[in-house]
Amino acid sequence: MKSLGVVSPQSMQFREPLKLTSGASIADYTLVYETYGELNADRSNAVLILHALNASHHVAGVYLKEDGSKSVGWWDNMVGPGKPVDTDRFFVIGVNNLGSCFGSTGPMHTNPATGKPYGADFPVVTVEDWVHAQARLADALGITQFAAVMGGSLGGMQALAWSLLYPERLRHCLVIASTPKLSTQNIAFNDVARQAILTDPDFHGGDYYAHGVVPKNGLRVARMIGHITYLSDDDMADRFGRELRSGQYQFGFGIDFEIESYLRYQGDKFSEYFDANTYLLITKALDYFDPAASHGGDLSQALAAAQAQFLLVSFSTDWRFAPARSREIVQALVNNRRRVTYAEIDAPHGHDAFLLEDARYMATVRSYYDKIWRETALFAGAAESVVAA
Amino acid sequence: MKSLGVVSPQSMQFREPLKLTSGASIADYTLVYETYGELNADRSNAVLILHALNASHHVAGVYLKEDGSKSVGWWDNMVGPGKPVDTDRFFVIGVNNLGSCFGSTGPMHTNPATGKPYGADFPVVTVEDWVHAQARLADALGITQFAAVMGGSLGGMQALAWSLLYPERLRHCLVIASTPKLSTQNIAFNDVARQAILTDPDFHGGDYYAHGVVPKNGLRVARMIGHITYLSDDDMADRFGRELRSGQYQFGFGIDFEIESYLRYQGDKFSEYFDANTYLLITKALDYFDPAASHGGDLSQALAAAQAQFLLVSFSTDWRFAPARSREIVQALVNNRRRVTYAEIDAPHGHDAFLLEDARYMATVRSYYDKIWRETALFAGAAESVVAA
Repeated sequence: MKSLGVVSPQSMQFREPLKLTSGASIADYTLVYETYGELNADRSNAVLILHALNASHHVAGVYLKEDGSKSVGWWDNMVGPGKPVDTDRFFVIGVNNLGSCFGSTGPMHTNPATGKPYGADFPVVTVEDWVHAQARLADALGITQFAAVMGGSLGGMQALAWSLLYPERLRHCLVIASTPKLSTQNIAFNDVARQAILTDPDFHGGDYYAHGVVPKNGLRVARMIGHITYLSDDDMADRFGRELRSGQYQFGFGIDFEIESYLRYQGDKFSEYFDANTYLLITKALDYFDPAASHGGDLSQALAAAQAQFLLVSFSTDWRFAPARSREIVQALVNNRRRVTYAEIDAPHGHDAFLLEDARYMATVRSYYDKIWRETALFAGAAESVVAA
Repeated sequence: MKSLGVVSPQSMQFREPLKLTSGASIADYTLVYETYGELNADRSNAVLILHALNASHHVAGVYLKEDGSKSVGWWDNMVGPGKPVDTDRFFVIGVNNLGSCFGSTGPMHTNPATGKPYGADFPVVTVEDWVHAQARLADALGITQFAAVMGGSLGGMQALAWSLLYPERLRHCLVIASTPKLSTQNIAFNDVARQAILTDPDFHGGDYYAHGVVPKNGLRVARMIGHITYLSDDDMADRFGRELRSGQYQFGFGIDFEIESYLRYQGDKFSEYFDANTYLLITKALDYFDPAASHGGDLSQALAAAQAQFLLVSFSTDWRFAPARSREIVQALVNNRRRVTYAEIDAPHGHDAFLLEDARYMATVRSYYDKIWRETALFAGAAESVVAA
């Protein structure tokens, strides 16, 4: 299969303040994004890909790092030439969200009001705020309607929000391994993770940049908690079981079990590159997402605004956002007589499955994009006919 | 229903060193315990109750605290006059385990070798070590055979270990909401909790007593993580849902949701009375328990040593130690043709259900103890006949 090869991020600055759900606004901000493939003449083949907690605009292709190593996009198995989201057909955009630590304006950047890093002053942003910012980027790129908006997990929430906030600006909405709102248990795990960060003495109320430290211990624990919820119990058992690192109990608090080694490594790695304030912001965006809330909790009523066609995908062993959560969305769309395709993939890898290679999953997305492509080609043909006439 | 009323702890000192699984030994130690009811003449009506992570010897009855408030035993709904474990019939012993922070020798006590608190030097103890220490207490109390040994969760592991280490010293073994070993995910949650404590700067390598501080933040996060695993997803949803404390989002990192308030409160409370070193020790005892390990992982082979009759109880929504884990024990006992009764209680409260009032659960335990009592009475009668003859 061909590869996108080396890709480069671009950035766009927005000078008009963005009014946020909280009532606050961001005066001046930058969004970092990547594009793959070519926008066609009638601008009908654009696809927007939205990222989850710890990802970015770097959806596909590779960066060459200074040390010669490569950084591969987080959905490179999904997006590229000949891949399910085929960049020979579609013009694909990956965009980094506000509040991130990967380029778009976030807590590490200078607050124009103070001349210092935002830190704790960076406003709490919502899924809806992100979508409005993304819509402005689409405006700037001259895209009035996307062939598809797609995301997994938190990215799926954004895709769903797109279908409600800008129903005429997307023809298809792909919501993968997501949920219409977090469960109480989901919120509980997020809050424990936040508490680990907030109570780390190196957090300094969010203004740790000025102290030359980062709340690594808190962020590390937060990531370890999160990581457990991304994996399925069975997958963890298959991969690590009760295997001992040194073949016998150590009778201390170092590493006994391989799973301990794995989780601590994941926590260490994450705490070296991720920003703690970003972690807080993104988990809050997750907690707050609940489009049914303003409709008295009636999801069918909330989704009545959607006009797109939908693909929903869930994974059997995902206990973070279990298949039942996707089925709630499917049912609400069906109640509104919307066109919806739903695939429940029997996969062992828990929530993480949405990022992994799985033949049935990939085939499902590929065949859905084939359908989009046929429509787009017809649509493009029809438009050309109109122009020709 | 009558109550035990005010009860008092007793303590017993052991001067003979206890050799531990790790190879270390404890030179001189004290066990704190409580007893309820009367030991009968032939000493055949003794019941030993074993505690889980955050409990103690204070199984039933009340303590009057200095401020006039009452501290009720953790299984007071189960143990007492006329209760399922009827103290009008049985002589019930609750014992605090080594390494605890509730009275028996633990990390807060003076290490005779150094004259300072044990702290990090307190040896890692196992479920089996606890059982050996409990057996010595039984010796000292003149009990050669228990009518029953009973525990929930980690206490259930101890009961199971009793049946293997001292098969002739118990007639019945009651293993409630337990497991033959922790799953990978169970270990993962324990390790994250330990990491929260170990990386708290106030932990000081376990010797925080000398610094006049306690690693409260770490212990608080550890407890919050644990607490999520004790409750069922549905129960949490029923009790807290997505209810907001102030009716609207706060757009900050204080308390938005009631579940956050609840968990932080639980964490705060726990971190004020529980000892961090004890938390580390007890979670390790949980992780290490695996009687099948020395039998190539064959639980049936491991349980061949057991001679007791068994009652196992599990709870449908317990995702920490799910019913399937109890069924593994049941199957292994059946494979050995042991007499085993198994009840799977359909209860909404997750792992915590073993501590709560539930009519079917209580009736199950009551009827099992009725059976034990009839046997005990017959046994006592038979013994008297022998004496009379």
